[in-house]
Amino acid sequence: RINGARLVTRLEKLGAIGALEGGGVSRLALTADEKRGRDHLVSEMKALGLEVSIDPIGNIFGTRKGRTDGPVVMLGSHIDTVATGGLYDGALGVLAGLEVVATLNDAGIETEHTVVVAAFTNEEGARFQPDMLGSVVFAGDMSLEEALDIVSIDGKRLGDELAAIGYAGKDAGPKDIAAYFELHIEQGPVLEDEGLQIGVVRGVQGICWTEITIAGRSAHAGTTPIRLRRDAGLAAARIAAGVGDLVREIGGEMVGTVGAINLAPNLVNVVAEKAVITVDLRHPDAETLARARASLASLVSDVALKEDVEITARTLADFPPTDFAPALVDCVEQTALGLGLSTRRMFSGAGHDAQIIASLAPAAMVFVPSVNGISHNVTEFTAPADLENGANVLLQAALHKAMP
Amino acid sequence: RINGARLVTRLEKLGAIGALEGGGVSRLALTADEKRGRDHLVSEMKALGLEVSIDPIGNIFGTRKGRTDGPVVMLGSHIDTVATGGLYDGALGVLAGLEVVATLNDAGIETEHTVVVAAFTNEEGARFQPDMLGSVVFAGDMSLEEALDIVSIDGKRLGDELAAIGYAGKDAGPKDIAAYFELHIEQGPVLEDEGLQIGVVRGVQGICWTEITIAGRSAHAGTTPIRLRRDAGLAAARIAAGVGDLVREIGGEMVGTVGAINLAPNLVNVVAEKAVITVDLRHPDAETLARARASLASLVSDVALKEDVEITARTLADFPPTDFAPALVDCVEQTALGLGLSTRRMFSGAGHDAQIIASLAPAAMVFVPSVNGISHNVTEFTAPADLENGANVLLQAALHKAMP
Ligand SMILES: NC(=O)NCCC(=O)O
Ligand SMILES: NC(=O)NCCC(=O)O
Repeated sequence: RINGARLVTRLEKLGAIGALEGGGVSRLALTADEKRGRDHLVSEMKALGLEVSIDPIGNIFGTRKGRTDGPVVMLGSHIDTVATGGLYDGALGVLAGLEVVATLNDAGIETEHTVVVAAFTNEEGARFQPDMLGSVVFAGDMSLEEALDIVSIDGKRLGDELAAIGYAGKDAGPKDIAAYFELHIEQGPVLEDEGLQIGVVRGVQGICWTEITIAGRSAHAGTTPIRLRRDAGLAAARIAAGVGDLVREIGGEMVGTVGAINLAPNLVNVVAEKAVITVDLRHPDAETLARARASLASLVSDVALKEDVEITARTLADFPPTDFAPALVDCVEQTALGLGLSTRRMFSGAGHDAQIIASLAPAAMVFVPSVNGISHNVTEFTAPADLENGANVLLQAALHKAMP
Repeated sequence: RINGARLVTRLEKLGAIGALEGGGVSRLALTADEKRGRDHLVSEMKALGLEVSIDPIGNIFGTRKGRTDGPVVMLGSHIDTVATGGLYDGALGVLAGLEVVATLNDAGIETEHTVVVAAFTNEEGARFQPDMLGSVVFAGDMSLEEALDIVSIDGKRLGDELAAIGYAGKDAGPKDIAAYFELHIEQGPVLEDEGLQIGVVRGVQGICWTEITIAGRSAHAGTTPIRLRRDAGLAAARIAAGVGDLVREIGGEMVGTVGAINLAPNLVNVVAEKAVITVDLRHPDAETLARARASLASLVSDVALKEDVEITARTLADFPPTDFAPALVDCVEQTALGLGLSTRRMFSGAGHDAQIIASLAPAAMVFVPSVNGISHNVTEFTAPADLENGANVLLQAALHKAMP
């Protein structure tokens, strides 16, 4: 059994890095605060006797050698956060991995397979798009060169930012993976609503991010008759409101969000000449997601016509719905039930590194409840007992695969 | 007659200060670029023998003494611009004032009344709200203390910015004004459409600026069901789109603009927890403007209810429709006709210092055509012949009042 109090202390220590006044944390990928988080993680790994390696996209691996040189059991997640995040999203999966290692160390257990704790770069996708970038490059789904050239929302090149914080590594990272487990907070309300302890994650819903750029004409807000306007701000608002409508029309599990809107020049008395907005569409089912994308496309052309603006769209992320390996999903479920915990199979609403690693190796996830279903918010919270339950499932599932 | 080529040179010289790459100019009020514009203006005034005084809100007055000590004839406008402005908005009125003085100097004319050229602080209202702030304080419509405490869109206190650029003056400025004339570009399409040379401005339409702040709850874009959202971004989009609809429903001369939208945290996968938008509503008729404001208020409450967000509104500017002094309007018209120019009486769509000075003294304005009706845009342009016509009307109207 893992040490629940020690796990909470781990979360609090990392959570102090990039802490926001009044609660919550901001460790946007590859910023100075995230570098301090990385440094802390590396020193914790070393203190536990792990061998630390960094790959060229900045993924951090802490290796605890097993008896054999075969495929490894990997426990991973991420330590970057959104700008107003909580202490648990991502951090839990990495720090529970360390807690598993500490527990093995305390018990003097030598595993058959090597155990690796991984922290992937830029999982959130808040500063650089796409999300899950570190695992995407690790899995070979995007070339390193392309990834290093991605530009952040604050206009910085990823490769430069990675080098600046000293995490452009030269190591390869383990590619022969027997099993990948990721413990994560649910970030949604389902487990809490149903009074359950563990979510057995069957897969992740499809995610599509689109950046929409609208070119209008700046004009005087007082003197320009409505019929002569090419108002990029109005077009942006019509698309954002239309996204709200189209996801409600589709209904069910369909979600859609316009989280970012940037107008230029963004002044009270100037009709905007340019607008850039992001659209996040998600659904567990590929066909419904495709339907939403088609609705968005027709919404965009309608608005372009109606407001006499030019609109271009760019895909920032496009992850199909992913199913996890049935054997590993069963293993998580049996482990949780064996520990006497109540469970439910479910899909993940959020994207996770596990869905990317799933193309390389059998992968599965363990969810623990989020209070009020809240995440990407400074008040994100999961009760210590739930953290402990999740970490125990992670420990036992890892042992199951590392000492078959 | 004024010297048209010299007037164009004056506009080009000031336009070089804060010039944007590719054309246009950015001299937001009380920035370093605007300070350089002020320094240039002051040195031009001194070169013409004007006595320069600065009042506590930073208005600049250049005085050419007349034979008597009575009320002055004032020619004014502003030299601040929006962030992506042109060379003519404001600058024309001030620099044509200098050109009038230069013409009087060249001709060795001593006027009966003193002539004052004025440049008022923060007319645009782009950086600090309300617009016309310098003339508002000059006219006693807002206390100096209140004005100095206004915070800019970039979070700076006006009093601090004014002191930092060295334009917090100690002079009073002339309050006994016989007549105030302001030459300005039309900034709209009417004169050009009708092929006319001079707009005789009868008054200025009513202007109402509202800042709307929306408090929602930040949440994960992938895991938060639509029914649990309190999406400040969606609420902002619905209000901005609704403003577009309500001004179209009212129709006629009604205009409304949401020029600024700011979301927080403004990230692709986070439901926005906060949004701040501005709404600019204008109409020549007070009742119609009041109707639009009422529609906005009910739109805002509908959205607050529908999206489960809290909304507060703050008035940033509230100027009623203003009529200029009939005698001065007649004087402008007769002067233009006397010069053989084609004219039209019209209302101004933009706010101007003249509408504020109108509460202190008889005021009137002269408009010249804007190519394509475009302003608050880097391509803003008025033909040299039109600039010259306008400045000649200004000269003759001023002489009419300064040498009655
Ligand atoms: N788990 C998580 O919040 N991932 C970030 C990517 C996303 O789902 O928006
Ligand atoms: N003339 C002018 O552009 N004034 C700025 C204030 C406004 O009308 O928005």
